[in-house]
Amino acid sequence: KMLRRVLCTVLFMGALPSLADVSQGHISVVLLGATGDLAKKYLWQGLFQLYMDQVSSGHSFTFHGAALTALEPGQRLMFDVLKKLACPPDESPNRCAVLKDQFLKLSQYHQLKTAENYTVLNREIEMLLRQEGLKEAGRIFYFSVPPFAYTEIARHINSSCRPPPGAWLRVVLEKPFGHDLESAQQLAAELTSFFREEEMYRVDHYLGKQAVAHILPFRDQNRQFLDPIWNRHHVERVEIVLKETVDAKGRTSFYEQYGVIRDVLQNHLTEALMFLTMELPDDVSRAKEVLQYKLQAFQSLRGLGKNSAVLGQYQAYASQVQEELQKAQDYISTTPTFAGVLIHSDSLRWEGVPFLLISGKALDERVGYVRVLFKNRAYCTQSETLRDAVHSQCKAKQIIFYIGHGALNSPAVLVSRNLFRPVMPEGVWREAVGQSDLHVFGQPLSDYYVYNPVKERDAYSVLISNIYHGRKDFFITTENLLASWGFWTPLLDSISHQPPRLYPGGVENQHLLDFEMVSGEVAFTLAEPVELLNPNRLMPSDYRTIQSKFRHSPLVSAWSEDLISQLASDIEKMASRTVEHSGQFHLALSGGSSPVILFQRLARHHYAFPWKQTHIWLVDERCVPLTDAESNFFSLHNHLLQRVRVPYFNVHPMPVHLNQRLCVEEDRGTELYAKEIMALVANASFDLVLLGMGTDGHTASLFPQSENGLEGAQSVVLTESPVKPHQRMSLSLPLINKARQVFVLVLGKGKHDITTLLSRAGHEPRKWPISGVSPSSGQLVWYVDYEALLG
Amino acid sequence: KMLRRVLCTVLFMGALPSLADVSQGHISVVLLGATGDLAKKYLWQGLFQLYMDQVSSGHSFTFHGAALTALEPGQRLMFDVLKKLACPPDESPNRCAVLKDQFLKLSQYHQLKTAENYTVLNREIEMLLRQEGLKEAGRIFYFSVPPFAYTEIARHINSSCRPPPGAWLRVVLEKPFGHDLESAQQLAAELTSFFREEEMYRVDHYLGKQAVAHILPFRDQNRQFLDPIWNRHHVERVEIVLKETVDAKGRTSFYEQYGVIRDVLQNHLTEALMFLTMELPDDVSRAKEVLQYKLQAFQSLRGLGKNSAVLGQYQAYASQVQEELQKAQDYISTTPTFAGVLIHSDSLRWEGVPFLLISGKALDERVGYVRVLFKNRAYCTQSETLRDAVHSQCKAKQIIFYIGHGALNSPAVLVSRNLFRPVMPEGVWREAVGQSDLHVFGQPLSDYYVYNPVKERDAYSVLISNIYHGRKDFFITTENLLASWGFWTPLLDSISHQPPRLYPGGVENQHLLDFEMVSGEVAFTLAEPVELLNPNRLMPSDYRTIQSKFRHSPLVSAWSEDLISQLASDIEKMASRTVEHSGQFHLALSGGSSPVILFQRLARHHYAFPWKQTHIWLVDERCVPLTDAESNFFSLHNHLLQRVRVPYFNVHPMPVHLNQRLCVEEDRGTELYAKEIMALVANASFDLVLLGMGTDGHTASLFPQSENGLEGAQSVVLTESPVKPHQRMSLSLPLINKARQVFVLVLGKGKHDITTLLSRAGHEPRKWPISGVSPSSGQLVWYVDYEALLG
Repeated sequence: KMLRRVLCTVLFMGALPSLADVSQGHISVVLLGATGDLAKKYLWQGLFQLYMDQVSSGHSFTFHGAALTALEPGQRLMFDVLKKLACPPDESPNRCAVLKDQFLKLSQYHQLKTAENYTVLNREIEMLLRQEGLKEAGRIFYFSVPPFAYTEIARHINSSCRPPPGAWLRVVLEKPFGHDLESAQQLAAELTSFFREEEMYRVDHYLGKQAVAHILPFRDQNRQFLDPIWNRHHVERVEIVLKETVDAKGRTSFYEQYGVIRDVLQNHLTEALMFLTMELPDDVSRAKEVLQYKLQAFQSLRGLGKNSAVLGQYQAYASQVQEELQKAQDYISTTPTFAGVLIHSDSLRWEGVPFLLISGKALDERVGYVRVLFKNRAYCTQSETLRDAVHSQCKAKQIIFYIGHGALNSPAVLVSRNLFRPVMPEGVWREAVGQSDLHVFGQPLSDYYVYNPVKERDAYSVLISNIYHGRKDFFITTENLLASWGFWTPLLDSISHQPPRLYPGGVENQHLLDFEMVSGEVAFTLAEPVELLNPNRLMPSDYRTIQSKFRHSPLVSAWSEDLISQLASDIEKMASRTVEHSGQFHLALSGGSSPVILFQRLARHHYAFPWKQTHIWLVDERCVPLTDAESNFFSLHNHLLQRVRVPYFNVHPMPVHLNQRLCVEEDRGTELYAKEIMALVANASFDLVLLGMGTDGHTASLFPQSENGLEGAQSVVLTESPVKPHQRMSLSLPLINKARQVFVLVLGKGKHDITTLLSRAGHEPRKWPISGVSPSSGQLVWYVDYEALLG
Repeated sequence: KMLRRVLCTVLFMGALPSLADVSQGHISVVLLGATGDLAKKYLWQGLFQLYMDQVSSGHSFTFHGAALTALEPGQRLMFDVLKKLACPPDESPNRCAVLKDQFLKLSQYHQLKTAENYTVLNREIEMLLRQEGLKEAGRIFYFSVPPFAYTEIARHINSSCRPPPGAWLRVVLEKPFGHDLESAQQLAAELTSFFREEEMYRVDHYLGKQAVAHILPFRDQNRQFLDPIWNRHHVERVEIVLKETVDAKGRTSFYEQYGVIRDVLQNHLTEALMFLTMELPDDVSRAKEVLQYKLQAFQSLRGLGKNSAVLGQYQAYASQVQEELQKAQDYISTTPTFAGVLIHSDSLRWEGVPFLLISGKALDERVGYVRVLFKNRAYCTQSETLRDAVHSQCKAKQIIFYIGHGALNSPAVLVSRNLFRPVMPEGVWREAVGQSDLHVFGQPLSDYYVYNPVKERDAYSVLISNIYHGRKDFFITTENLLASWGFWTPLLDSISHQPPRLYPGGVENQHLLDFEMVSGEVAFTLAEPVELLNPNRLMPSDYRTIQSKFRHSPLVSAWSEDLISQLASDIEKMASRTVEHSGQFHLALSGGSSPVILFQRLARHHYAFPWKQTHIWLVDERCVPLTDAESNFFSLHNHLLQRVRVPYFNVHPMPVHLNQRLCVEEDRGTELYAKEIMALVANASFDLVLLGMGTDGHTASLFPQSENGLEGAQSVVLTESPVKPHQRMSLSLPLINKARQVFVLVLGKGKHDITTLLSRAGHEPRKWPISGVSPSSGQLVWYVDYEALLG
């Protein structure tokens, strides 16, 4: 066998280095895809660096390159790479030459294709260990192969190449880890059937970038300075940016399937985001706690909608795809090559702070950075020219983790001098000295404390070292991965058919990709120039909201999303006008699923809504405790009240739960509510009542043939629903009809039949309670989406 | 008579100009204080300008200088001034010379001292009109005299110098218009007894500054651009600034009584503030509507507290006062010569936007401006060097009304080019052309559209012209004046004994007067350097928190601010531990002022607090509606609940208001609350009860000798307070003593006596209810600040 022969040769020459005098045990590193691009560019160099760093650690090593290629050509290919391994500048050339020689001798090529190949590899490792009398410490399998190959390789390793008990197995996986939540879950489930969680090291090479890897340690070591300012009161915005000048040429077979969000944002930029936003565990080196806090940070992220992102595609992309993937001339790709995404966290710490994640190809410069910009809360009485960088609070305050390239062309940590002089780990980062007339992020470099790494290490060297040390916090766990896909997948789904804006590429992009934040959404600043429009592309459908009549009352109709937007802004307009006029706005809201979308819209987009002056009433309620998930109020609370600032006194849940029991008539909850309305609402005439409509024509909790509430003097009634929970409390039809304005919201195909029926029906409240809605002196408006209206 | 002689001479010479061929009638202008500083510097020039502008208006004029000085020397003094009147650069020298000659002939000096003098003046005016056959249009009396003289002059004018019916009277008043709200009211009442509101023209010469006068017209003419952005969503901050380099030397007799806030902020800067914040009437030239909207804007201003301002005094001021006012060497002045004030409007438009008003003497530069800075909501994908001023939304966006002096040395209106090209009235403002390498407000001048007045007019010329035209919107009405004093007086009162920070003056001030906004308040950024401290002033001390024992229980003591921090983090730690352990945290809070500081601290600094799992209970409540400012819950709501995210269901106000009445026993509010506690709090044992202590030894609402709550089985009781509101609801001592932890917070010198008494007292709850706090199985901790502990 080849290995044996080589080993024998080596042993004969007495040159197999260091294997005999070790005590910590032997580590076998198997690099799968040993002759691929990544291996050539980074991985072998990283393994060589590991060897140089750890040669005296007490561990012995062998390195096994593997690929599908047959032994002879594979071996040649691999050693061509190994021969070119570079000596790092901080290593003495002599030592490096000796170690390189040793490294080459310890490295071996294997064809790994069949199950048998794996069995043989395993045997050879065992034999070597036996022959050398070595204890086995562990095995590292580095998967530098396409993900479709993962499952088979994993199966082989699990069945034939596991080290004996007492030694560890570490398998290192490279992205992509799926394409969306579902595929990621599937891949994860497969891998989990072969490996234990602690055996898997999923690489996100950004976690090996020195500036990114230092975010958490920086936050930890500078707690004294950051504690008071690392929050929404002090941070104005955060930008996490990776700009590239290259395009996707030559890689479109991969890129066309993934696009910039899957390629860069879902993984690299999201990980940086997590390091910034997560709460800080007491000990940032404990992987388990870090993971737990990271997952909490994921949970706090607000969901993304299609307007959370702006998307672009450089103009040449389409023809590159057509050429490389042999597509027809009229093939249209909607794969974005540029994305700017606005993310919000709803945690107390970060609520309201915009986090911008931006990446793109064919841009004007290559640069990566994480920039935390602080608010300027100062007034500087001295004129501008007299301000100095350390003392003036009016100069911009920022902390920048500079990942690389760009003007600085090196990893760096920058802290504005008027913030604080940071604590940086000695021997790892050092302060940059000397003059520079560079301007970065709007300020001269001299306005910052600037630190560079003492030794600049490429990401893979850092990661391989962390694999060796078992530092799992530098890798993506299954939970972390799925949380990230869970966060991104809804956006990816909602934009999958959205044509990105075309951009020419490079400096010609000018301001075409600038974008702005408005009410939690983003949009390009400039309108799309006509000459860049893809001639084959459908224009974004611009059906407008239509205005018409339904049952002799005004009808507003649109696709549901547009309809909800329209309804929300109509409500805001009404609220503002009413508050201006009478100082308060009394709004009665219904339960159910359609209003939830409205509540979310109101909470996230209507910052000018006069909540402080708004009173919230319930149209109807189920007889369950208010904290029950079935409660209308509970849903209203979670989707609206928790997100806006309605004073406690202005919130009026229905008293369905009195004396520890539910809707018992003698507890007189209906009277209590009626009295409260009488006491606070002038003439018991609500400013706005929002109703829904059931497929049976019910509205509020007034069901067909109901004994109560369809007529009579009672303004609040107990009713019976045909579906569970049966008991309900509801405003009565007469009270609803006293309102100054009534909006009825009807959404979805399921409502088409009743909508059609109702369009022809007369006033028959006993049959269809909704038909009895007819404000005596107020106005009724129907908001019906196209699906309900047109089926 | 002198006047007659002069008139005769003039008539004889046939040179009394223009009097004969007029149709609009005659205007007599009487300048009281005709030989004073203001008259010399501005008023005569303004009157001459008026004459030049209106000589062909159809009106005829005579100008009557008056003073207390006898005729002979007064006349000489006055004509010395008149001879020096300048010709404006935009006037042809010939025309000006002719008009100046005419103006001198139309001008006359009078000694106005006694009642008879006024009668004589009146007779002379009448005679002239009769002789010339002129109809009287009106009379202007310009009061350029100290305010103590106002009343007497007003009385004389009213009784002897009113024009006949059909002609108008306009009296022009110069500030100061009082010293605070009360004195302003008194002066206003006196003046109102002599003049009708429409007869009074109160000058604020800032309203004559061309840039200030143009704020409203600018907002009006640029509605299309400003409507979407002139609000809290787009404006980041507003600065209204008047910096002076001169000091108060030679004027300390005035200045020492007034100080910078009364001298500049209450009037000039406040007027500019109103022009910015008021809603815009449809027609901005209608004085009545403008006034009405201005008064509304005043009403929206949030009240100022002493922490709304930072105050300074230049170092030389004390000795100048000592010298000029013959004060003793140890005389200490607290008159501020520098002030920075943070103002908030609670209008829907402006809520949350900081308005900074800043003025001072002995600063590094002389400049005045109003600066509206807009928020940057953009991300510019292109690198900085490639951005251009018109298109890049990432460059600063601002609108500046540049009042004068400073780098531009001329009035100007500046609008960032990336905002919009403003509409400016042609012929009045013109766009500045030509290159300039000036930087203003952080940007090169070329980033702005810059407009200057076509004719630069000094403020008094503008105002005198407006008096002539009866444009009352350029003057301060009585209501406007009192609204302003009403706004400023509480701040003036609260700072009257507060020593301002000393500053050296000029560029040496460095960053000493820079200040920062934190939570709606302001504070100087830098600590006061020791060498500048007033030797008579106490040093801030930095005792640390001490831990000890008080009444056999743990005692934590510190200066109040540190104590509150400590308490807040102790509560957070407890909450987190308890939630981790049992899933919820039941916290009972007391009312009063000390907890307010704690609430603010918790809301602003404790982002990790598990509010979602925390239940908030009240220790005690006053029998007032929950929305009453006296309600403990109301205070808790405003300072804490509105700022954090406690679920609605977890908030438990005391039911003091049932069936539309307060704390009626048969409504059984106490039982209701007791039941709620029993239902939700395990064993009715709160996790933490926070108590205060009264000077009489009361705690919660348990007062000495109380009939209820000190013992017995009832857990919630109604009690009587010796102070209003008398009726209270309170947790009982036995219930409090069931808590797992009780913290007692005691702050302030006022509590020193009771603290001392209590340190020696035993268990005497009837005498001192607080002494009965002794948790049966929980822990008691005292948080007592140094002032309470040490006096």
